[in-house]
Amino acid sequence: MGISFNTPATVILANGSFPTHEIPLSLLRRTTYLCCCDRAGMTAIQKGYMPDAIVGDGDSLPENFRQRYAAIFHHVAEQDDNDLTKATRFVIAKGFKNIVYLGATGKREDHTLANISLLGYYHKCLGVEAMMVTDKGWFVAAGGCRTFKAFPRQQVSVFNINCTKLQGKGLRWDLYPFSSLWQGTLNEAEDSSFEINGDGEYLIYQTFEAK
Amino acid sequence: MGISFNTPATVILANGSFPTHEIPLSLLRRTTYLCCCDRAGMTAIQKGYMPDAIVGDGDSLPENFRQRYAAIFHHVAEQDDNDLTKATRFVIAKGFKNIVYLGATGKREDHTLANISLLGYYHKCLGVEAMMVTDKGWFVAAGGCRTFKAFPRQQVSVFNINCTKLQGKGLRWDLYPFSSLWQGTLNEAEDSSFEINGDGEYLIYQTFEAK
Repeated sequence: MGISFNTPATVILANGSFPTHEIPLSLLRRTTYLCCCDRAGMTAIQKGYMPDAIVGDGDSLPENFRQRYAAIFHHVAEQDDNDLTKATRFVIAKGFKNIVYLGATGKREDHTLANISLLGYYHKCLGVEAMMVTDKGWFVAAGGCRTFKAFPRQQVSVFNINCTKLQGKGLRWDLYPFSSLWQGTLNEAEDSSFEINGDGEYLIYQTFEAK
Repeated sequence: MGISFNTPATVILANGSFPTHEIPLSLLRRTTYLCCCDRAGMTAIQKGYMPDAIVGDGDSLPENFRQRYAAIFHHVAEQDDNDLTKATRFVIAKGFKNIVYLGATGKREDHTLANISLLGYYHKCLGVEAMMVTDKGWFVAAGGCRTFKAFPRQQVSVFNINCTKLQGKGLRWDLYPFSSLWQGTLNEAEDSSFEINGDGEYLIYQTFEAK
């Protein structure tokens, strides 16, 4: 299917299910900079990936682990943001704006919903080019008019954030300014690209596998 | 923690990850009526649970399976609804209004988002008392003023659908009419119940485990 992702400048590894699919694993291997959310830092090291930074309140990390990795552990105690947002603010302060999120789904469903919806917030409010890659596909936060690479019969879902006008080209089913998450799911790419045109923000989900 | 669910009148088993936690498995065992979405019917039978109905377009079912279970297979071909909605309309036509959804998360994340958000649609537009139980916790679709059983430090997330006023009692953090999914997550029950008061619809997520 020819899915290829550029080498990411930075990956944030969250504390959901650790990736098992080759595509997210290759991003984890190839990233220039790896920032882990709290306990995900321990998981990464156990799996053989050395973080450049571990960000969080440290509550979920054993004391001896924190001492051993003190040089890369960055304590952020404030409670207004979740771990994913703490890590995002941290890498933004390092100068990164293109961020790939891994391990951000697959455990508590409310965390999954929060992490996915936060992509839109990072894009709109923090100026991040945010992509989340899972074991099944990937989300991109975007706005305005944008073209997406695809392949014939790739499954595509469009989640409207705040568009009052929303149109697509190159998708099997027409778009409209969806008011519920389910309304934009189960679409399909017709060929090797599609275009989305909205007057606000949206999330695109594309699967690794064709139908 | 004393979580107990009444014996469900009907369970709809979707084609996400088959439950592994004892709570959803016990609901599957105890339900009076079991309706499976297409291929989930095959999975259920392989796991030892006999469906009362299998609803879908049958595309994902082998021919010999369809023939063998023709008496309980109900072919619904239309493409406007996903499998979960087809099954929901089917059990509503059987007279059921209290529906427990299992196996509706854990594979493609766009299906997970769609299935969760559909709970709100079923509640608001089809008059269903909808609950989705996963391996980590459960979602309930509700509206207006409602009291929820809980336990101290149970993790609670509130997803606003269309409320312009939204308040809580008995939760650690104040509610407001959230405009993004992440804003209402990571709340916590203070004691054995909490109250939500909204002027519209919302989804509540409660975990099996305390923090």
